[in-house]
Amino acid sequence: MKFATFIAPGESDPQAGEVRGDEIVAFSSGTVLERLQSGDRTPAGGATHELAAVTLLEPVPRPPAIFCIGRNYAAHIAELGSEKPEKPLVFLKLPLSSVPPSGPVKRPKASNALDYEVELVLVMGPDNTIAGYAVANDVSARDLQRSEAQWSRAKGFDSSCPWGPWITTTDEIDAANLRLTTHVNGELRQDGSTSDLIFKPQELVDFIAEACTLEPGAIILTGTPSGVGEAFKPPKYLQDGDVVKVEVEGLGALEHSITT
Amino acid sequence: MKFATFIAPGESDPQAGEVRGDEIVAFSSGTVLERLQSGDRTPAGGATHELAAVTLLEPVPRPPAIFCIGRNYAAHIAELGSEKPEKPLVFLKLPLSSVPPSGPVKRPKASNALDYEVELVLVMGPDNTIAGYAVANDVSARDLQRSEAQWSRAKGFDSSCPWGPWITTTDEIDAANLRLTTHVNGELRQDGSTSDLIFKPQELVDFIAEACTLEPGAIILTGTPSGVGEAFKPPKYLQDGDVVKVEVEGLGALEHSITT
Repeated sequence: MKFATFIAPGESDPQAGEVRGDEIVAFSSGTVLERLQSGDRTPAGGATHELAAVTLLEPVPRPPAIFCIGRNYAAHIAELGSEKPEKPLVFLKLPLSSVPPSGPVKRPKASNALDYEVELVLVMGPDNTIAGYAVANDVSARDLQRSEAQWSRAKGFDSSCPWGPWITTTDEIDAANLRLTTHVNGELRQDGSTSDLIFKPQELVDFIAEACTLEPGAIILTGTPSGVGEAFKPPKYLQDGDVVKVEVEGLGALEHSITT
Repeated sequence: MKFATFIAPGESDPQAGEVRGDEIVAFSSGTVLERLQSGDRTPAGGATHELAAVTLLEPVPRPPAIFCIGRNYAAHIAELGSEKPEKPLVFLKLPLSSVPPSGPVKRPKASNALDYEVELVLVMGPDNTIAGYAVANDVSARDLQRSEAQWSRAKGFDSSCPWGPWITTTDEIDAANLRLTTHVNGELRQDGSTSDLIFKPQELVDFIAEACTLEPGAIILTGTPSGVGEAFKPPKYLQDGDVVKVEVEGLGALEHSITT
């Protein structure tokens, strides 16, 4: 099942729906978050729209928490000259980091070095279960990341986390070997596989849960493969007007612009 | 004006109130967060209770964001052998970090080195204004802080942020020179003054706001003075059953236990 939160043509209030191929079928009531909390997987039976005609929002607007993992692909660690962590490197984004799959991502005035990071997202259900998967761009301000020991501003600035386009429940896909790609203005920049994750999804959940309760609707961005803009010589940072497309095989794609 | 969120004797739902001396007067409707959003400072006119008879909750349960500042007192930087930061060191706690002024604080199983940090709290109103002040204990897992480069688990574990006991609005107090103290089981451990803050409240707000919108009800913990348990030889970490009291002159005190 593919859960989405969307605005139907001519309407203004978000509603929950189920993506089926090129269509989205509305649920008669309730939010995606409520379905994650309850485990309800009853198929949607409401109005049907062409997927291309609706506006997709984040599947869970303002997620209860956004956990992120750094340095979780060996090739990415190597390209940045970092060290492989002995345990997962966990950092946080903020409620206002979360934006729809179509963004836009606004460059904060504090940064001139925005970068992209395609990531597999884990979406939590009750009792530390992974309810589903999605796609995110862990947009990063590299200049702030270099000059500030804690990455709160570098990784948590407003709009730094476009994600979606929907949640694919775990019964529908095996996330162990999915291709991840990033294109910037049509140019392929990242091309990896979730099979290269150092710490696997369940390990990440267990590690975070040792200290922090994972509420239903909380999301975990699992890290990015190699090919980030920072690693090019000279670096290829995102410029105002650039269009970024991040995709995970079987989970969909996000495409958003960079603005100020 | 002093805003509190409390549960009256014999009731179960939280309500908003105004603390006046030894009493708390209920507002007829609305939450503290709504008053922070609107700027409404109309005095409360509802039922009156003895302050000692009610249960105080966090003034804003699940604040929209919890920003914290590290290394913002010179004597604390010296006691930990850290370096003075060139700009504010910003880290984050999580929604479930927030607990009432009476706690309890639960030691996460991942840590055996819990420590206390009394802090002046800034509570945000609209448009990057500081609406009021409060008190927090920035409870810290020193072992995790040492072994994990990003402090998400060390500082963001469940219950790591008891705060309150109420919000004192900025018109009522000048926070530039307030005494801060921590007692553990009655023993004085920290004794500082907000006059020693390196980065002042407005500087902290401006710095964060360069990247992250500060919503009404968001809080900023401004850093701790010297005297933390980690700095004693041998270190005096918090033990299960310890009672911690943190106080800021004019803003009230929190007293909570440590449990597992």
